[in-house]
Amino acid sequence: MTYCIGLQVDSGLVFLSDSRTNAGVDHINTFRKMTVLERSGDRVMVLLSSGNLAISQAVINELKPLDSSLLVDAKNMVEATRVVGDALRKVYSRDAEAFKEFGLDFAASFIFGGQIGQEPPRLFQIYAAGNFIETTRETPYFQVGESKYGKPIIDRVVDPDTSLKDAAKCALISMDSTIRSNLSVGMPLDLLVYEANSLHVKTHVSIGLDDPYYQQLRSSWGDRLRQAFNDMPDPAY
Amino acid sequence: MTYCIGLQVDSGLVFLSDSRTNAGVDHINTFRKMTVLERSGDRVMVLLSSGNLAISQAVINELKPLDSSLLVDAKNMVEATRVVGDALRKVYSRDAEAFKEFGLDFAASFIFGGQIGQEPPRLFQIYAAGNFIETTRETPYFQVGESKYGKPIIDRVVDPDTSLKDAAKCALISMDSTIRSNLSVGMPLDLLVYEANSLHVKTHVSIGLDDPYYQQLRSSWGDRLRQAFNDMPDPAY
Repeated sequence: MTYCIGLQVDSGLVFLSDSRTNAGVDHINTFRKMTVLERSGDRVMVLLSSGNLAISQAVINELKPLDSSLLVDAKNMVEATRVVGDALRKVYSRDAEAFKEFGLDFAASFIFGGQIGQEPPRLFQIYAAGNFIETTRETPYFQVGESKYGKPIIDRVVDPDTSLKDAAKCALISMDSTIRSNLSVGMPLDLLVYEANSLHVKTHVSIGLDDPYYQQLRSSWGDRLRQAFNDMPDPAY
Repeated sequence: MTYCIGLQVDSGLVFLSDSRTNAGVDHINTFRKMTVLERSGDRVMVLLSSGNLAISQAVINELKPLDSSLLVDAKNMVEATRVVGDALRKVYSRDAEAFKEFGLDFAASFIFGGQIGQEPPRLFQIYAAGNFIETTRETPYFQVGESKYGKPIIDRVVDPDTSLKDAAKCALISMDSTIRSNLSVGMPLDLLVYEANSLHVKTHVSIGLDDPYYQQLRSSWGDRLRQAFNDMPDPAY
């Protein structure tokens, strides 16, 4: 399993992915799920992948080398998203028949976002069929993979005028709730924060179990949640 | 869909169920999912059902009339749980063939708990095959139906020495998080609180959208969660 989040706020974009993949509980590995294309001053794009690892790696291979791919020529983020969707369709046309033979689902889902030139930042979710949807002000985020445990906190906290720091904090709390509940989502995490109109990557860190901020967040979020719980009035029944 | 929770703490049991059932988004109805057998001073049993509504209703019909069923003669809660499991197996033997013909899953899952005489209160989850598991001190609760959204708060708050009031509050918050995220879980709710060794039902209420405590909980939990979020330190990255 996997858990990836992309959040869009007025001040930019936040991307967070775990790095666990598994094929049965006895076959668990670490693979990075975040791919970044940065041409400072011109464009920044980030791709988060979930689903069958062979498919997502094949898609990224189709796009490589990134700095001479069609992504570099795309005039806007919709065009760039189509490039990723087309790469996915190419993989499908090559592999889907064999997948069917083995009774495997062609499971793949991507979060893709960034900014090109003067166009505002945009964020998309790309489905296995290569089609895609974009965030709206009402739903300014996408999750792929094990999304349910970490959804309530995002729904309650994030809206378009949330700050970038808060969006990153919320993504990390959402990830922590997921990691606690699902063994197949795991560290290290990749966090990328993109500030709108900067056209370069502000923050891109790998967060391991020994990361002091993440450790603090793990323990203090639990404490604060319990405190909030204790402050609630008792049932009247 | 459905969401039901059963919590066991040292001071008793808490049961909470929603009442929405659906067969596609254009066919949504309200059905109660909580069945109670109370013989004051002798035994209290509560059954929460999820899965195919025809199956759960058939199981309850097998058990009716409750006050002359085998549940009344059961010497302890394991025996009583077997009675429910046997009723489920009887329904299976009658209906499963027809289900297969129509390509339907025989989907059913129950939370069943209570207390008989001197035996301490016990809480079980019964699977579609009629087999069952019991809570432990490490995992003092069961959820059936749409369980993921509401799991993190239970994991962080409930352990065996949680008070009954707190357990009920936690169940309601868990339910609220689920209702916000999944349209197919809905009001009214049925809440039952059983105090250990009382051998009668302490609290059994139906909670509608206009219930003042639930309204307060909805709004103030969101506020407190956001407050807890704001109190967290900003990411150091």
